[in-house]
Amino acid sequence: MDDTALLSSKPTFADDKTVGIVGLGLIGGSLAKALKVNTANRVLGHDINPNVVKQALAEGVLDAALALSGTDSSTVQTAAPPAQLSECDMVLIALYPEATVDFVRAHWDKFKKGTVIIDCAGVKAEICTELSAEAAKRDLYFVGGHPMTGIERTGYDHSFAHLFSGGTMILCRDEHTNIIALKAAEMLFTGIGFLKITITSAAEHDRVIAFTSQLPHVVAGAFIRSETAKQQLGFSAGSYQDLTRVAFLNEPMWTELFMANRENLIEEIEGLRTRLEEYVQVLEEGDEQKMLALLAEGKQAKQQYG
Amino acid sequence: MDDTALLSSKPTFADDKTVGIVGLGLIGGSLAKALKVNTANRVLGHDINPNVVKQALAEGVLDAALALSGTDSSTVQTAAPPAQLSECDMVLIALYPEATVDFVRAHWDKFKKGTVIIDCAGVKAEICTELSAEAAKRDLYFVGGHPMTGIERTGYDHSFAHLFSGGTMILCRDEHTNIIALKAAEMLFTGIGFLKITITSAAEHDRVIAFTSQLPHVVAGAFIRSETAKQQLGFSAGSYQDLTRVAFLNEPMWTELFMANRENLIEEIEGLRTRLEEYVQVLEEGDEQKMLALLAEGKQAKQQYG
Repeated sequence: MDDTALLSSKPTFADDKTVGIVGLGLIGGSLAKALKVNTANRVLGHDINPNVVKQALAEGVLDAALALSGTDSSTVQTAAPPAQLSECDMVLIALYPEATVDFVRAHWDKFKKGTVIIDCAGVKAEICTELSAEAAKRDLYFVGGHPMTGIERTGYDHSFAHLFSGGTMILCRDEHTNIIALKAAEMLFTGIGFLKITITSAAEHDRVIAFTSQLPHVVAGAFIRSETAKQQLGFSAGSYQDLTRVAFLNEPMWTELFMANRENLIEEIEGLRTRLEEYVQVLEEGDEQKMLALLAEGKQAKQQYG
Repeated sequence: MDDTALLSSKPTFADDKTVGIVGLGLIGGSLAKALKVNTANRVLGHDINPNVVKQALAEGVLDAALALSGTDSSTVQTAAPPAQLSECDMVLIALYPEATVDFVRAHWDKFKKGTVIIDCAGVKAEICTELSAEAAKRDLYFVGGHPMTGIERTGYDHSFAHLFSGGTMILCRDEHTNIIALKAAEMLFTGIGFLKITITSAAEHDRVIAFTSQLPHVVAGAFIRSETAKQQLGFSAGSYQDLTRVAFLNEPMWTELFMANRENLIEEIEGLRTRLEEYVQVLEEGDEQKMLALLAEGKQAKQQYG
């Protein structure tokens, strides 16, 4: 395959490609809708729930259902004949982490050579370790991805074309990464609305994401599981509402994400517990100067790293 | 004094009263602006910085400067002659907690009988204990107040008339509270935009506010004071930005608020530390079912108490 075929002369993923999307939930559904709104690519889609595929076809979000063989029995019979995975130039996988690995492993032989495969799971080390080298051996181009654009809702019904507008897409690079495939991914995601593409290693992703994404979800839940929460009606401040927003989450998905990144997450939670203890000590001492210093340090950090 | 004189036939604080505002920062400035926009009351104002008073007069936010005697030397000389505290039917004090108590103590003899005095500090037990009984002895009506409408900015320059729109105003009631004065306060605050008036005791206020307002400010600072924060650029999620928003705070004010509510705040921080430790234990055990249960509990709490 000619690597440059994925690139058009414009700085965008070529518009005449076929993109398959596996999993039409909040992320996959939004990817399909964003591709339809922003590009002229042919969009194929698959979901474990055949009704979702029917709906996406009826809404014109998909050009055709993606027929998957093997364990899959949810092929949808519609006017448009279902298409094959082998027709895809790029496959976007929007499944939970374990299902992502399972899916790719079960379909290695169904991708055509040169296909760019990008996943969207919120942890990367396990997935990239499993898939990156194996893909390269098969002349497939795997890129680990993480769209940092979650909302507190799940499923196709909540998906929308502008979910990614202004957001950050993280792409993981390792020694097996094909640079043209990476560039094509970057262009595709920029083309559907992402403002920023961050390229990093899977290990670095997981370490930092434990702090910026997983820890806020732990804290939101831990915060609101207080007995005092039951008495807060009429005392609720914006800060409380903002901090606890993500306590409303998809618990099976987050359980999987947390467990796949246990060591990093434990370190971050323990770090926060230690820092919280500093405030307790200063309060117990009643030391106003120390409290001023702690708060000033937090304020400065927010200005620099917020 | 006829208690009902404060009430008009409409369910609003009578529009022909004189309201004095002490402290023209974010809250006091916004109170003055909101009174001008929403009512026909005469608005008098004082600030330790005479330039702020000049500006408010020039902008038509104040009808006259409030001349304060004694330690105060910041009386502003303008075309409109300064007015006296004794002209006020209601005095709103928008100072830090200690300054609030100091101000009222220094001016007991300057208020006319029947004046409703309302403070705006974020802690209430100390202030109400100091001022409520003493006010009643002097035929003055003190009501402890807390507008739950902070933003991450301070000072008159950031004040605006709609700061309170849709917000919650907490008013504290004790055995010395005059019910007509409380009703007048309720009407005034409803009239300038507050959606909800919560009436509670000072002790209950401080206990719940340690959780809903003070703890989020501690957590935001403790969160962002992580070493990992320095590496988060390009990995920043909405949840991280929301959680750390209030790390940018007015540190002298929050130091005073925290210190005045130490016992409640320590209890809340320790409660959160304990709950965070549960997540660490479940992660260490690798127990997915327990993690699902923790997350489901947090989600349910958010739905019920969010």
